[in-house]
Amino acid sequence: MIPDSKVERWLREDVGHHDVTNQVPGETTGRLVAKESGVVAGLDAARAVFEYLDVAVTDSAAAGDRIEPGDAVLEVEGSAREVLRGERVAVNVTGHASGIASKTRRAVDAARAESDDVRIAGTRKTTPGLRGIEKRAVVAGGGDTHRLDLSHMVMVKDNHVAELGLESAVEHFRERASFATKVEVEVEEPADAPRAAEAGADIVLLDNMDPDTTERAVGLLRDAADDIGREVLAEASGGITVETVPEYAATGVDVVSMGSLTHSAPTLDYSFRTG
Amino acid sequence: MIPDSKVERWLREDVGHHDVTNQVPGETTGRLVAKESGVVAGLDAARAVFEYLDVAVTDSAAAGDRIEPGDAVLEVEGSAREVLRGERVAVNVTGHASGIASKTRRAVDAARAESDDVRIAGTRKTTPGLRGIEKRAVVAGGGDTHRLDLSHMVMVKDNHVAELGLESAVEHFRERASFATKVEVEVEEPADAPRAAEAGADIVLLDNMDPDTTERAVGLLRDAADDIGREVLAEASGGITVETVPEYAATGVDVVSMGSLTHSAPTLDYSFRTG
Amino acid sequence: MIPDSKVERWLREDVGHHDVTNQVPGETTGRLVAKESGVVAGLDAARAVFEYLDVAVTDSAAAGDRIEPGDAVLEVEGSAREVLRGERVAVNVTGHASGIASKTRRAVDAARAESDDVRIAGTRKTTPGLRGIEKRAVVAGGGDTHRLDLSHMVMVKDNHVAELGLESAVEHFRERASFATKVEVEVEEPADAPRAAEAGADIVLLDNMDPDTTERAVGLLRDAADDIGREVLAEASGGITVETVPEYAATGVDVVSMGSLTHSAPTLDYSFRTG
Amino acid sequence: MIPDSKVERWLREDVGHHDVTNQVPGETTGRLVAKESGVVAGLDAARAVFEYLDVAVTDSAAAGDRIEPGDAVLEVEGSAREVLRGERVAVNVTGHASGIASKTRRAVDAARAESDDVRIAGTRKTTPGLRGIEKRAVVAGGGDTHRLDLSHMVMVKDNHVAELGLESAVEHFRERASFATKVEVEVEEPADAPRAAEAGADIVLLDNMDPDTTERAVGLLRDAADDIGREVLAEASGGITVETVPEYAATGVDVVSMGSLTHSAPTLDYSFRTG
Amino acid sequence: MIPDSKVERWLREDVGHHDVTNQVPGETTGRLVAKESGVVAGLDAARAVFEYLDVAVTDSAAAGDRIEPGDAVLEVEGSAREVLRGERVAVNVTGHASGIASKTRRAVDAARAESDDVRIAGTRKTTPGLRGIEKRAVVAGGGDTHRLDLSHMVMVKDNHVAELGLESAVEHFRERASFATKVEVEVEEPADAPRAAEAGADIVLLDNMDPDTTERAVGLLRDAADDIGREVLAEASGGITVETVPEYAATGVDVVSMGSLTHSAPTLDYSFRTG
Amino acid sequence: MIPDSKVERWLREDVGHHDVTNQVPGETTGRLVAKESGVVAGLDAARAVFEYLDVAVTDSAAAGDRIEPGDAVLEVEGSAREVLRGERVAVNVTGHASGIASKTRRAVDAARAESDDVRIAGTRKTTPGLRGIEKRAVVAGGGDTHRLDLSHMVMVKDNHVAELGLESAVEHFRERASFATKVEVEVEEPADAPRAAEAGADIVLLDNMDPDTTERAVGLLRDAADDIGREVLAEASGGITVETVPEYAATGVDVVSMGSLTHSAPTLDYSFRTG
Repeated sequence: MIPDSKVERWLREDVGHHDVTNQVPGETTGRLVAKESGVVAGLDAARAVFEYLDVAVTDSAAAGDRIEPGDAVLEVEGSAREVLRGERVAVNVTGHASGIASKTRRAVDAARAESDDVRIAGTRKTTPGLRGIEKRAVVAGGGDTHRLDLSHMVMVKDNHVAELGLESAVEHFRERASFATKVEVEVEEPADAPRAAEAGADIVLLDNMDPDTTERAVGLLRDAADDIGREVLAEASGGITVETVPEYAATGVDVVSMGSLTHSAPTLDYSFRTG
Repeated sequence: MIPDSKVERWLREDVGHHDVTNQVPGETTGRLVAKESGVVAGLDAARAVFEYLDVAVTDSAAAGDRIEPGDAVLEVEGSAREVLRGERVAVNVTGHASGIASKTRRAVDAARAESDDVRIAGTRKTTPGLRGIEKRAVVAGGGDTHRLDLSHMVMVKDNHVAELGLESAVEHFRERASFATKVEVEVEEPADAPRAAEAGADIVLLDNMDPDTTERAVGLLRDAADDIGREVLAEASGGITVETVPEYAATGVDVVSMGSLTHSAPTLDYSFRTG
Repeated sequence: MIPDSKVERWLREDVGHHDVTNQVPGETTGRLVAKESGVVAGLDAARAVFEYLDVAVTDSAAAGDRIEPGDAVLEVEGSAREVLRGERVAVNVTGHASGIASKTRRAVDAARAESDDVRIAGTRKTTPGLRGIEKRAVVAGGGDTHRLDLSHMVMVKDNHVAELGLESAVEHFRERASFATKVEVEVEEPADAPRAAEAGADIVLLDNMDPDTTERAVGLLRDAADDIGREVLAEASGGITVETVPEYAATGVDVVSMGSLTHSAPTLDYSFRTG
Repeated sequence: MIPDSKVERWLREDVGHHDVTNQVPGETTGRLVAKESGVVAGLDAARAVFEYLDVAVTDSAAAGDRIEPGDAVLEVEGSAREVLRGERVAVNVTGHASGIASKTRRAVDAARAESDDVRIAGTRKTTPGLRGIEKRAVVAGGGDTHRLDLSHMVMVKDNHVAELGLESAVEHFRERASFATKVEVEVEEPADAPRAAEAGADIVLLDNMDPDTTERAVGLLRDAADDIGREVLAEASGGITVETVPEYAATGVDVVSMGSLTHSAPTLDYSFRTG
Repeated sequence: MIPDSKVERWLREDVGHHDVTNQVPGETTGRLVAKESGVVAGLDAARAVFEYLDVAVTDSAAAGDRIEPGDAVLEVEGSAREVLRGERVAVNVTGHASGIASKTRRAVDAARAESDDVRIAGTRKTTPGLRGIEKRAVVAGGGDTHRLDLSHMVMVKDNHVAELGLESAVEHFRERASFATKVEVEVEEPADAPRAAEAGADIVLLDNMDPDTTERAVGLLRDAADDIGREVLAEASGGITVETVPEYAATGVDVVSMGSLTHSAPTLDYSFRTG
Repeated sequence: MIPDSKVERWLREDVGHHDVTNQVPGETTGRLVAKESGVVAGLDAARAVFEYLDVAVTDSAAAGDRIEPGDAVLEVEGSAREVLRGERVAVNVTGHASGIASKTRRAVDAARAESDDVRIAGTRKTTPGLRGIEKRAVVAGGGDTHRLDLSHMVMVKDNHVAELGLESAVEHFRERASFATKVEVEVEEPADAPRAAEAGADIVLLDNMDPDTTERAVGLLRDAADDIGREVLAEASGGITVETVPEYAATGVDVVSMGSLTHSAPTLDYSFRTG
């Protein structure tokens, strides 16, 4: 859901108090057209921009579609003045989201060379104000949102462990977390992975380990999970790139998370053509 | 100015309804530390985040400073709970803005090899919701904001020219624009550059020309400006990258504008260290 | 976190455009005092109200504390005018939240007679605008938040099952849900409980069953979970009251959820005493 | 009036960043159906929720209508996705408001056994964020809003009287209040009721008196009003319940106000049926 | 109460995305100084502006004070950057409110020549977004707010009367209005004034009558009020100016209301002096 | 652009929590009709008010049109309840904006007696919350917006000059301002006008000079501009009224700016007629 108030703020920051160039009479049509190949996302936001301005919108692509240069993804029809007002903001948000989807798609495809089912996930390293749009863009690219906000899943971090000890920290948060909430535990050493599982982790985050160390940690974790008769997922994280994601995918982890999907994806180039 | 309401939205989207992990008693200190070299920006936003949470902030760097791994840019002191709440958002926004400043700096430095005074400018291709922060990050990187919003400067675009003719379009907007507002005219052909100047353009945008064509257009424009006895600036734009910016800088244009400064800058990596 | 903008709206709706009765000079102190016994919640909201008005606040109780008539839970000191402005709103929100905590505590205590570890949970049946405050009030009363919003946990409902079939519906959502998200499946018949578990449910909601039927469903579910070697939780829901909660607690379910905790809890009576 | 921004906040707090279960294609219809008998209120809010989502709404009941189980009060038609998004919030707000209307109706009916014209009024003890909706729900139940906010009517309270003396306090506020604003004076002792009337009160609030004492105070007040040739209303308040309201109605007061109408009314049970 | 969000909007509309002129280091002091004589109002708004910017504020005048050129009404101390940011907005709002207070004072003083107790009141003809500030400015000038919003007092207008008849219209609204709300009835003919009183009006608005007709209507109204033994106020309204207010004051009306107090008051000239 | 959130705030402040007089069934039409002659502005705001309320709007005049008593400027059709809700706010905002346009028109017409092309401009002395509406009203009256906000144009003020010296101050800001931004320099003495031009000013503001002194300063400035071969505009400002504007127009300045256009324009009188 893209709230009206968010769209209003986007438009307001682009228009200012008195724009003389948008004083155009009559009706027009417009199309949002890809200038490079990639994966579509952010159309719900582009739609919300035009609908806020009472411009009619027709989607010609869906989130997750692969597109080629020249493909239209959205068509609009309405007051020329309002179409012009919305154009730049719509291009900006769609390009931003599609850039994230496209980068995620590249990471997923790279990982598929080594693993059929590893999940490529985002992180909380999103652009302030765009959490939902960016998370949904990761999904459009074939990725996994990971936790949406601090309340979605409990992450037991190194500072918690330093203060309480690993087992106590996990127990502490299992008691406080809802039954509806998973608990993930961050570990720095392979030997801590089975300990986290035994303490009750639903997921163990193998933080900043190289692929070999990651593979070793996964092995220890799988053994522990077998012993305790409960599924425990393994996630690798920390400086993983589209280039290195296959090596991590090959370690047997369930999830590879990458902050760069959201914080460092270049835009996907679109143009808006009227008339 | 970073409005309180913006900070509130950033925090709310990251926290959710019930975060059990930030229920930490006592006071703490924290430092925002660079993990790679680059140029600082976004500190006003990071400061606003912590001040919204009543956490005391001391800057240890200023917008535009070059930093190296390990350099702290901001130090905070306050309730551990509130410091934890603000940490991720502060890192995200500072990393985003500093990434833009660092990319701008690279473009400016690349251009300086060929020109001492060409300005490297952003565009309106900013991330929705972050216009001001991104424009100020471009400045921190040594760049020029270009127009801040549609009301800041009039841009006469190809569709205006197609409808009214070049001279009439310029005249149309000169009459409607305030004396406080500059008028820039976008041209696709070198021969249109002097026509735009004669029609009253303060700036002529040479759109999507290769460096040679740009240089030719600049020459025609300079001649026309001499004839009419008025300064007219030349701006090159359209698909220019950090790699190609020196070639454009060498053409004699006054301004090179690059959408990628804001829409495709990777984050600058920071970590937040508490205690 | 209680956003400033929420507090501002609460105060604005109570004050109006011109209140002549709060034009009081000088400083004052005030105390929020219980008039009946119960469990405290909502102090973060009361604190936020006074802090918005620049009135100093000291807690004299914590969320979850049991209180008796005459116990102060919050003390304030500041401008008499601002204390008067905040008083009614602070009493209203604390009374509302504490009423929920107290009702939850009664339900938890009633359940404890039959089960040491059954969780008493809220639902999404909260008062619009107060989701977070009410969920945290349930926790203060010894309860479990249940899912905080639609994005927190996937609930496969009867209409999904009707459309896709039980197994396909569960598979459909397991594929779309993040690894960070649990999947709960609502069933109307005991025989569907083991099917849901086998299809991949993390939790099975036994909807609108009487205690005997619930107990039978729990038995079938436990057998299935043993077979598939995975923990699957059982939740009972549907018209359960503080009076009937012990019967459900005795069925062996892991969770009993009750909408009435949030939508039908009478306020806890407080008064605000100044000077 | 239910502002769009309020509806937006309600929806946002229920949806979160990424809800996979509402991704349903096509159109649907839905009906909001009572599951118990009571009095309808809050339909304007339910309507606003669906209209924010561009779902068409038809009322099948009006505020104040008595309804029985199975009665539909609202019918909607539109995008299945948007209907699902609005459903829970619409049920929550209608149930909340109708619960207040129903409780008010019970209090009014109880009072009618003893008095044909006593007004049953709410107070400022409303749920933060819902003042208008709750006040209108009281009206739907046959009650009186009482003062809507601090600016609507002046209430001279015990602390004002303690500071200035009764007569001076009333005079003080009569001078400062607009001619458009009534002045009510709170008294603790029957003997103060005629003093308040003589000092200029439009209404005298008989605070926390038992029925006999209230009746005595009403008598003194009527005599004083006759003497001064001006209508002065009498209001009873303080811990009055649906059970005790007839006794107060029998005392001859004009108004009985009850905080519990808004702060302690259980929801009225509704279900939302699609398709 | 001046909400933070209102101040934020005022500042944001004046600052824009990147103001290079306020980048001033260090601390400064400043004073808001009158440049002409008049009556002070709006200081609460000016204070709110500076406090939003964390600048310390000391009032040197109070709402309603008469001031002469050179008188300081507010002094500030804080960051030079923030003082500069707030200056223009603070002057604008204080000048606007003080202009209203000064015009009200002139109208009140003019009326006092003919009547010691006639009230000079504003109307609902206020500047959108500034209702509260303008109403309080009227009070600062010695005037009466009149009704603050549509919910504050019921106004039975000519279209209601046209539809229902005068007596029925009054009865209709008396039944629907709270006991806390006054009912005013607008009449066009003197003969309708006593009818309105007899029908239950608390106040009768004599609309668009000349002074003689007004005086006649007041006489008829006073007779009717005597007959029914109840106080009924008379208000004159419609095109009354500071010049004509004495003639209306002399008619014996209780209230003269003037839209021009708020919609046509010139600003009071202030300057802001720093350092 | 009039944001929905602004309209919502205007309506909310006028309606309050419970208005019984707008509970009118059925549909109606209405017309916004001028009661005096003047120039129309603010219709976009009036339109936004009614469209927020889902009332259909047809303009019967355009911004800048001269109107006479009896002319309709806007016609509406829709729910009687919503038309009534919007009426007062629509009249208030249109009257306010049209008052500014009408005053600007008077100033422009007065200036035209002496100069065919002098621009009559507003200032930043606008009513908080209405910057855009008031600037556009100035344009509707034939005036020039002047700078829209602090970021639109750099104004080098006396305090900058006092601190840095005139030439250094101009250079300081030319370096910091975007190429898209003009730089205006305020001078108090005629001799400083050519210095400002030589230092790089695009516009020189001749502050608080009488007409003769202004004329002298303009002469010096023209000479300097000829010498440096660059156009430099001259603006007169400071206490100029509709009465004195011809004298300033005769001095040869390019721009005369007047704060009173926005801060002291009486409303233009409109009535709203339904049915």
